[in-house]
Amino acid sequence: MSINALEEIFHPQAMAVVGASEDSATVGYDFVRHLLDFGYRGEIYPVNPNYRKVLGIKAYPSLRDIPGTVSYVICCIPASKVLDLLEDCSQKGVKAVHLFTARLSETGRRDAIKFENKILKQASKKGIRLIGPNCMGIYYPKEGLSFNYDFPKEPGSVGAAFQSGGAATDLIRLASLRGIRFSKVISYGNALDYNESDFLDYFSQDSETKIILSYVEGVKDGKRFFNALRHAASTKPVIIVKGGRGESGTRATASHTASLAGSIKVWETAFTQAGAILARNLDEMTDLAASFYFLPPITGLRVGISGGGGGKNVLSADECEEAGLDVIPLPLEIREEVRSKAPPIWDWIGNPADVSIMQGVNFGASDMLQMMATNQNFDLLIANITEDRPASKQEMTWRLKGEVEGYIKVKKENSKPLLVVVGEKSLGIEDYSNWRWKLIGELRAQLIAANIPVYPSVGRAARAIKKSIDYYVSRG
Amino acid sequence: MSINALEEIFHPQAMAVVGASEDSATVGYDFVRHLLDFGYRGEIYPVNPNYRKVLGIKAYPSLRDIPGTVSYVICCIPASKVLDLLEDCSQKGVKAVHLFTARLSETGRRDAIKFENKILKQASKKGIRLIGPNCMGIYYPKEGLSFNYDFPKEPGSVGAAFQSGGAATDLIRLASLRGIRFSKVISYGNALDYNESDFLDYFSQDSETKIILSYVEGVKDGKRFFNALRHAASTKPVIIVKGGRGESGTRATASHTASLAGSIKVWETAFTQAGAILARNLDEMTDLAASFYFLPPITGLRVGISGGGGGKNVLSADECEEAGLDVIPLPLEIREEVRSKAPPIWDWIGNPADVSIMQGVNFGASDMLQMMATNQNFDLLIANITEDRPASKQEMTWRLKGEVEGYIKVKKENSKPLLVVVGEKSLGIEDYSNWRWKLIGELRAQLIAANIPVYPSVGRAARAIKKSIDYYVSRG
Repeated sequence: MSINALEEIFHPQAMAVVGASEDSATVGYDFVRHLLDFGYRGEIYPVNPNYRKVLGIKAYPSLRDIPGTVSYVICCIPASKVLDLLEDCSQKGVKAVHLFTARLSETGRRDAIKFENKILKQASKKGIRLIGPNCMGIYYPKEGLSFNYDFPKEPGSVGAAFQSGGAATDLIRLASLRGIRFSKVISYGNALDYNESDFLDYFSQDSETKIILSYVEGVKDGKRFFNALRHAASTKPVIIVKGGRGESGTRATASHTASLAGSIKVWETAFTQAGAILARNLDEMTDLAASFYFLPPITGLRVGISGGGGGKNVLSADECEEAGLDVIPLPLEIREEVRSKAPPIWDWIGNPADVSIMQGVNFGASDMLQMMATNQNFDLLIANITEDRPASKQEMTWRLKGEVEGYIKVKKENSKPLLVVVGEKSLGIEDYSNWRWKLIGELRAQLIAANIPVYPSVGRAARAIKKSIDYYVSRG
Repeated sequence: MSINALEEIFHPQAMAVVGASEDSATVGYDFVRHLLDFGYRGEIYPVNPNYRKVLGIKAYPSLRDIPGTVSYVICCIPASKVLDLLEDCSQKGVKAVHLFTARLSETGRRDAIKFENKILKQASKKGIRLIGPNCMGIYYPKEGLSFNYDFPKEPGSVGAAFQSGGAATDLIRLASLRGIRFSKVISYGNALDYNESDFLDYFSQDSETKIILSYVEGVKDGKRFFNALRHAASTKPVIIVKGGRGESGTRATASHTASLAGSIKVWETAFTQAGAILARNLDEMTDLAASFYFLPPITGLRVGISGGGGGKNVLSADECEEAGLDVIPLPLEIREEVRSKAPPIWDWIGNPADVSIMQGVNFGASDMLQMMATNQNFDLLIANITEDRPASKQEMTWRLKGEVEGYIKVKKENSKPLLVVVGEKSLGIEDYSNWRWKLIGELRAQLIAANIPVYPSVGRAARAIKKSIDYYVSRG
């Protein structure tokens, strides 16, 4: 595939939203809103015979009535009207149509499947490329394209091709709260024309994209897909989630994107052989993306842990070890250094370094991390935010702020990979104004701003890091 | 063990905090503060020769100077002074001492271990019972006892015996945000006198406790512990986390609570044979506690899922099936009912019921759940909060509020077990004032107030529920 055709779609000269609307309960409203909110710089043409203006922009009864050229159309009208629209598109010289339009092959209905094929034939005949149907289209912050509210406006280096628009939305929200930013995200639904392989090919060549995420339920052409995947994985990390792994999920993929899912073992073996990194769900995909996004390549397993107290430490060690990391005993040279700085704990402190025993010594979690950062025995460092301290608001605020400042200093002064665990919580609305959870939110934002990845638990961090280590080791 | 001795500890007539302080950076301040904040009704005696008052309460130079009787002492002074304190306690007729005091056997130092034994001997000779050393003591909201700030003041029915005070704190925060409330929580540290078996015995007889949680790193007497565990598990659900499972975690338990951890396979086999429910970490323990706390006994595996759209649904089905639940196809009688209410989707909708295909029909996720709730083919229901909808603030707020109202109605009108998935997020401080995450916080609080358990992901919900089903099924 030539990169050019898709490149043109990502940089449309002018856009029309067909089925644009003033009714904020419709996507015809949303898509125009997004172009405005995200600062799309080309011409925007709302199309709807029932409106003279949509969101303050002149609307047109039909595509043909638009005076200028239109390169890209977002189609929010019912399927039955798509063939006529394609005719109009052809006359206007439209290059590509994103069909948000659904209720086609994913319904499983024979006439809908036939009609979907008719759409493809018509589009091919007219030289119009399609994204979708039954999808959310493109989020490309640099170009001002989005398919939901409140996505980050700053661009980043993660590219994602998702068969599901809902899953893409979830992923963008999960990942962006963790500080990850995107080059381009494509939700492609039923993949009638452009499909998963096209997007993999595109991302493997795209200089804006350093990490590729893929969510697939099924693929159009298995052989082509695995070739595309192998090629993409040879250029950058590719993290993949397969939806529809079991009997019920497979049933669900059929009615979602009309995909035939097939045996999960066959899929996963093929993914692995192609060099892709498997994730079970979007949480794990986010954890993996954070590792590749924020951390330099890690090829050793020896982890130093600090910040937790007591049982938290014990469980941290367990979860790291169970994930395959090597929680080495504290090196003697560090013990000697502790002896000079904090005599009461030098023979007793270990790895993980327990902060609960640091009472009364002028020595904290970040001092320990600093020693580990300059010690060649450690390949990576994990800091646990010490949330469990039995302390008052003043004391807790002072200590945790100091702790996080220390971590940021360690990060700035050393090249050793460092990640921080900040637990996620099921906050109720009243908790949003509680000092404790606000403090956690502040610390998390500070860490992310300092380019330190945060993970919701040690177990999730350790499992993601181990997979990234496996990836780097296998690449030599 | 007689329940009476511990019962006396849980209902102290008068309490002394030895090492009480006006310095809010010390636990000697915190413990007095907690008694005041949580409304302890007996006499409070701060003890410290350096203060005439602590937090407005008259302080005494020593325990002997207190005019009234003292039944329970919280000891925050260094280990070296504990023997003298025990002498004073004996003269005052003190029944029990909670030794927050640490740096004893957990340091691994021979002299500290010897000294700890001396403390035990002295206490035994004087007829004084000990909790700890190296622990946080008791959280008993009904009695006004606590060991941290901001724990819930309302009592509940979960009892917990934790070797680690930090882990206990983490657990109380995680669980209370999920709506779980506690009868009594004990952090018992080095378990010099009262130990894990005593607390299990106590909780198995305690009428305020319906569910028992236990965090152990090591046990004092293996045979006694497994007998106590078997007995406790025969009376109520016992959920247990073992800290120190691997090499490094075992090393960490030694310096944390001076426990010898032993082979994890032996432990886990014994736990399972005793009828306890195993959890890997505090997140899983919280999920399990939520299942037993909020839901009636479930003995069947057939789950109905609604609320998610597209890929979220597909992955929901996968994760439920992988956890061992049975995501059955939509029963025909429900399909017929949908045909009459929402003709455009009747042949297409499935289980999980995809909300993203419900556009333009007057039919939502909670309508689907209502049908599943009255259908005998389902054993339990999972609702997914539809966060991924491509909608504006107004539309999203209206829809999600309606969705949750619907779930609460389903719960009120039916006896079928229902749980709701509301994703946890790594919010930064600015996100706390964003309408989207505030809305999620409001909905979560509403669901919990309606006694509907919330889980952070479908996978975590499904795995916890499956373990609770196994528990109920094994009990016939």
